Amino acid sequence: MSYIGVGVSPGNVPVYHGSSLKVVDRRVRVAELVLRCVICVLAILCAVLIATDTQVKEIFTIQKKAMFTDMKALVFLVISNGLVAAYSLAQVLRCVMNMMRGSVLFNKPLAWAIFSGDQVMAYLTLAAVGAAAQSAVLAKFGQNELQWMKICDMYGKFCNQIGEGIATGLLMSLSMVVLSAISAFGLFRLYGENKSKFVGRL
Amino acid sequence: MSYIGVGVSPGNVPVYHGSSLKVVDRRVRVAELVLRCVICVLAILCAVLIATDTQVKEIFTIQKKAMFTDMKALVFLVISNGLVAAYSLAQVLRCVMNMMRGSVLFNKPLAWAIFSGDQVMAYLTLAAVGAAAQSAVLAKFGQNELQWMKICDMYGKFCNQIGEGIATGLLMSLSMVVLSAISAFGLFRLYGENKSKFVGRL
Repeated sequence: MSYIGVGVSPGNVPVYHGSSLKVVDRRVRVAELVLRCVICVLAILCAVLIATDTQVKEIFTIQKKAMFTDMKALVFLVISNGLVAAYSLAQVLRCVMNMMRGSVLFNKPLAWAIFSGDQVMAYLTLAAVGAAAQSAVLAKFGQNELQWMKICDMYGKFCNQIGEGIATGLLMSLSMVVLSAISAFGLFRLYGENKSKFVGRL
Repeated sequence: MSYIGVGVSPGNVPVYHGSSLKVVDRRVRVAELVLRCVICVLAILCAVLIATDTQVKEIFTIQKKAMFTDMKALVFLVISNGLVAAYSLAQVLRCVMNMMRGSVLFNKPLAWAIFSGDQVMAYLTLAAVGAAAQSAVLAKFGQNELQWMKICDMYGKFCNQIGEGIATGLLMSLSMVVLSAISAFGLFRLYGENKSKFVGRL
C-alpha cells in the first residue's frame, strides 16, 4: 500500500514523495552554491574598491591624501568583507564536495554550524554596511549642527568610488540575508515532523 | 505496532512522539512570547532614552542645545525602534491569542509572514544600531583627518544618555536576532520530512 501526498502517515516509503523532495533539495543546493559564489565575488570587489581608493588634493602647498583608513567605518567594512570572502570560499568548496559526493545534509551539528556562520556573517555585514553608509552620508552632506563639514565637495572622485564600494557591499549583504534564510531552511527542516500526528487549529 | 524515536517510518501514530514534540512546542511558544515582550519594552526604552535626551550649553551669550535630531542616525534609530515596538505589541497579542486557543502554527502563509516580519525587523534594527554606534564613535572621538571635532567633551551628559540608548538598542536587536531564529524554526520545520525516506551520507 502506498500513499501519495503530504500529511499522511505512511506504512511504506512513497516513491513520489522522496523523488520530488530530491528535486527541491537539488535546486536548493544549486541556489546555495550560486549565491555563495556571487557573495564571494561581491565581497572581494567591495573590499578592493574601498581599500584601493585614494585621492590627493593640493591646498596651497600642502598635499592632503584621502584614504579609506581615515574613516573607521570603512576599515570595519573592508575587514568584514575580507572575512565574508574567506568564509564564502570555504563554503563553496564544501558545497562542491557535497554535490560531487551526491550527499544530502542530514547532520544536525554541521547544519547548526553552517546556520550560525551564515547568520553571523549576514548580521555582521549588514551592520558594517549600515555604519559605512552613515559615514558616507556625513561625508556627503556634512552635519552643520555639529560643525562637521562635507568632504565630498573636495574629494569627489574618492567619494564616488567609496559609494560604489558601499553599494556593492549592500548587494552582497542582501545576498547573505537570502543565503542565511536558505541555511535556516536546511537546518530547521531536520526538526520537521509529519503534520498529521497532531494538527492544531489556526 | 508502534515505533518510538525519530527517523522511523511509522504505520501508526506514535504516542511518545507527538507528546514530546508538544512539550518542545510549548517551550518554544513561551520563549517566543517572553522574547517579544522583552523586545517591546527594550525598543520603547531605547526610543524614549534617545528622543528625550537634550542638553543646553551656554557659550558666552549664545545658547546651544544638543538634541537627537542633530544626528540623522539617531532619528533613524528612534523610528526603527518605534516600528519594532508596535510590531512586537501586535505579535504579543497574536501569541497570547494562540496560547489561549491552544493552537499550533501549521499555517504556511502565516508562518512565512511572521518569519519575514521578524527577519526585516532584525536586520533593520541591527543596521540602525550599527549606524548610530558609528555616529556615537565619531561624536566621542572625533575624526581628526576630516576635521570633525569631538562633541562629547562639551555635551557629556547628553552623550552618556545616548550611549545608554544605543546599548539598549543593541540588546534589543540581539534579542530580535534570537527571535528571528525561533520564527525560522517555526516556518522551516513545516517543510521537514521523515529522514528515513532518503538518507544521504555526510
